Amino acid sequence: MSKAKIEINAAGREVLTEINGKQQVPFKGVGQYKPTGRKAAPPIRSCSDYPEDGDKRAATIKEALKKCGLKDGMTISTHHHLRNGDYIPNMVFAAAAELGVKDLRWFPSASFPIHAPVVDHLESGVVHHIEGSMNGPLGDYCSRGKMRGTAVLRSHGGRYQAVQDGEVHIDIAVISAPCADPFGNANGLRGPAACGLLGFALADSQYADRVIVVTDHVEPFPCIPWQIQGNNVDVVVEIDSIGDPAKIISGTTRLTKSPDRLLIAETAVQFALEAGIVKDGFSFQAGAGGTSLAFAVFLRQVMEKHNIKARFVRGGSTKYLTDMLEAGLTDFILDGQTFDLDGVRSMRENPAHQDTSPFTSYNYHGKGNFASMIDAVVLGATEVDLDFNANVVTHSDGRLLHGIGGWQNCLFGKTVIMPIPLLRDRIPVIVDKVTTLCGPGELIDVIVTERGIAVNPRRKDLLKALSGSKLPLRTIKELKDEAEKICGGVPAKPNFGEKVIAAIKWVDGTVIDCVKQVG
Amino acid sequence: MSKAKIEINAAGREVLTEINGKQQVPFKGVGQYKPTGRKAAPPIRSCSDYPEDGDKRAATIKEALKKCGLKDGMTISTHHHLRNGDYIPNMVFAAAAELGVKDLRWFPSASFPIHAPVVDHLESGVVHHIEGSMNGPLGDYCSRGKMRGTAVLRSHGGRYQAVQDGEVHIDIAVISAPCADPFGNANGLRGPAACGLLGFALADSQYADRVIVVTDHVEPFPCIPWQIQGNNVDVVVEIDSIGDPAKIISGTTRLTKSPDRLLIAETAVQFALEAGIVKDGFSFQAGAGGTSLAFAVFLRQVMEKHNIKARFVRGGSTKYLTDMLEAGLTDFILDGQTFDLDGVRSMRENPAHQDTSPFTSYNYHGKGNFASMIDAVVLGATEVDLDFNANVVTHSDGRLLHGIGGWQNCLFGKTVIMPIPLLRDRIPVIVDKVTTLCGPGELIDVIVTERGIAVNPRRKDLLKALSGSKLPLRTIKELKDEAEKICGGVPAKPNFGEKVIAAIKWVDGTVIDCVKQVG
Repeated sequence: MSKAKIEINAAGREVLTEINGKQQVPFKGVGQYKPTGRKAAPPIRSCSDYPEDGDKRAATIKEALKKCGLKDGMTISTHHHLRNGDYIPNMVFAAAAELGVKDLRWFPSASFPIHAPVVDHLESGVVHHIEGSMNGPLGDYCSRGKMRGTAVLRSHGGRYQAVQDGEVHIDIAVISAPCADPFGNANGLRGPAACGLLGFALADSQYADRVIVVTDHVEPFPCIPWQIQGNNVDVVVEIDSIGDPAKIISGTTRLTKSPDRLLIAETAVQFALEAGIVKDGFSFQAGAGGTSLAFAVFLRQVMEKHNIKARFVRGGSTKYLTDMLEAGLTDFILDGQTFDLDGVRSMRENPAHQDTSPFTSYNYHGKGNFASMIDAVVLGATEVDLDFNANVVTHSDGRLLHGIGGWQNCLFGKTVIMPIPLLRDRIPVIVDKVTTLCGPGELIDVIVTERGIAVNPRRKDLLKALSGSKLPLRTIKELKDEAEKICGGVPAKPNFGEKVIAAIKWVDGTVIDCVKQVG
Repeated sequence: MSKAKIEINAAGREVLTEINGKQQVPFKGVGQYKPTGRKAAPPIRSCSDYPEDGDKRAATIKEALKKCGLKDGMTISTHHHLRNGDYIPNMVFAAAAELGVKDLRWFPSASFPIHAPVVDHLESGVVHHIEGSMNGPLGDYCSRGKMRGTAVLRSHGGRYQAVQDGEVHIDIAVISAPCADPFGNANGLRGPAACGLLGFALADSQYADRVIVVTDHVEPFPCIPWQIQGNNVDVVVEIDSIGDPAKIISGTTRLTKSPDRLLIAETAVQFALEAGIVKDGFSFQAGAGGTSLAFAVFLRQVMEKHNIKARFVRGGSTKYLTDMLEAGLTDFILDGQTFDLDGVRSMRENPAHQDTSPFTSYNYHGKGNFASMIDAVVLGATEVDLDFNANVVTHSDGRLLHGIGGWQNCLFGKTVIMPIPLLRDRIPVIVDKVTTLCGPGELIDVIVTERGIAVNPRRKDLLKALSGSKLPLRTIKELKDEAEKICGGVPAKPNFGEKVIAAIKWVDGTVIDCVKQVG
């Protein structure tokens, strides 16, 4: 880091001003950076260069990559709707290795433990570096400073923004498609690897120079709905299997059984009710984590008791949400990814279960997005600090093990509630200063723990609504002190090296923080 | 025209090389012009400039136009899904006149007789000229050489191509929306002015600098499906009524009663059957004209008799097509515009009735489109010549009275069938040379008249399939001669002035022909 230029951004964080050879804008504060210029513009194509009968099939991924002109230094993108069951990225880089190509940039919407073989391609030079969430072995590899380039972590909305704004130019997008026609129309609703929707691949299909759809389930034209539009697709490849269904989608989603987590979830619901958020026509977002699911379950009880109906629920959908839709407790599910088979079925069958994309839901460089319209948003964090700043990417040991997902984008919800335990593995979750800043405290409204609720002092309206409540309202400092008392003091901070191994982007493409190598 | 530079294009037509101050590419032959460069790129926006609660409403169209920075010389676009019932364009130009703005370019997907008041704005200088189909009084005004600029006529696909490729930059798009939410999500499925879909406005919503949605039926967010995405919309205006339902959509579609037309339609169906086109899994397109409807009705009889099911039908949907869908005679309707109330209902209720857009169906500068995948396409023409070239925009008197619609785009269908009468008002439809060239003969396969069928000699496969058929196969010359015999010779050509009043674009943006002022 000796030669890299560093600046202190508006959040007081040291950030690189150049990353992977590209100039960066340091974070300027929420809503303060005003973009200029025009969106990225993909090349104009002509129908005369595509088959008139609409059949764009090539025999193999390797042939498709050759057709798309794969060469050294290109950026290859993939999406992660198939999660830890997705076979495609490994196949793509194996084919690239066979073709003798070097120094690729992999731009996944997220990577998973199944993609550990990419470590070999990083070692051999086929892949230069990864920009995208790295869960598991790849995050560990990167954290240990072994990757040549710098990782760049973006939220789902930030990834759309980066592609739309031309910050990241995708040469070839490879889209794992559970269901497609020979023209390239594709969706995630049918076929053995059905995953629900393909929204994470939308930007890729719109802006990449070349787009390859890989499927194991071809239907005759037209494959409807066209979540991915064949008019954006260059080549279609049919293979035996694109993924392991068991690792793509849970058969059923499991609720937490931890008494502490159940207590936290129930308290969060009670808070939302007493604060006046849970009322007819309201909306909420709750993910698929144990506590989030428990939140949805308790919320449903409260809604039924008080005869309250939601206008819409933001998923990650699960059986808990589809049951609410089918019971008439919400008009719509607006779904960004399906987490279980009920979610897939519901999206396939129920027009009120609407698939969304990072464009509709999260893109900060659009004319508004859906995230800021949601009344109550429930999010987790690995750390929260006394200013309500939160971390979601690094563990207490400093290692980069999580992606940002839609987390930063959801912070724009009207009331952001973080149900978190006071301690994880006997380490306090509330800290003086977060190791890595992912979300500014001004956007985080309420911390709910098993030993009390801390409302951000900026939210005077919430504090007023709760005056006289029997809920255990505390300051965040009180919660922190209590946690430290329980575990006997403040634990030692992890040892970091000097090398910056990852940059954390804010939703507007500015750099909000950097992550250093673990020592 | 003395100073204008003229070139002879690949079709042998004299065309301007500069139109409204912009350089033009003369038509080079079907599939011969290869575009370069990148697509148009709209400005990058930021959510920080839009209301967090998603409510983008302004009180009036005038206020919305001011918010969008309307000024002299801008291009304003509208769509024509509300057809002759659409109140919006007149309101927009009235508001522009009140604001004292001059020299606007109106870029409608089509204009209708209801928009006759725009003649006043052309006269007063509020509107400089119109680029788009002009039906009725505006076409007549233009034909008489009264418009300041040159009209540019494009097909539906050509309009998408022109916007996508940056040939036409839209400053402000105004979208008449039968149903919308305050965020700007909109569709044509519900509300008093329900028209089915809004596909003609898609390019406008994607590429215009500013987008205004005008509606008379606001639903709470989310208005689903979002045929127009609120993330592309700047301002929403709610008014009392956007259009006259009786003139937007027919209550019921009427079939032709003319014995000649019925004979032509029946002959066309028999031709398609004997040529081997009508078989399980096939597809066809038939519009809402009397003969086209009759074609669909006779085709259905043949399909039922032979137990044949289509994979998809391209609409313009009507009760005739929705009945086929509901009877299981086709898997899907792929619909570009709904023509009657049954079409609207079916699209609203039946997921197999899919709305499409000029992007999916027609854009020639995409990675393929749907038009070339259709087995049988039925299209009309005002004139056809001995080389099978066809005209669809000018009448026999030389006046510009029709738009191109999807006609040019549909010429890419696998077999293009033109059911036309030998004579219209005692004037032969088959001529030596079409007055205005809209479609090159190499794409037109079969002319079906009440006195015989002429197959394009290029289609040796069709001629072979029909050898031994009892169908009245003739040459196109024979048909022409017969018509001339009936009406007693070749009628006089219209007198044209020297001034070019309109250019006809081919699907790739090149100029295929020009139209001169009527004398």
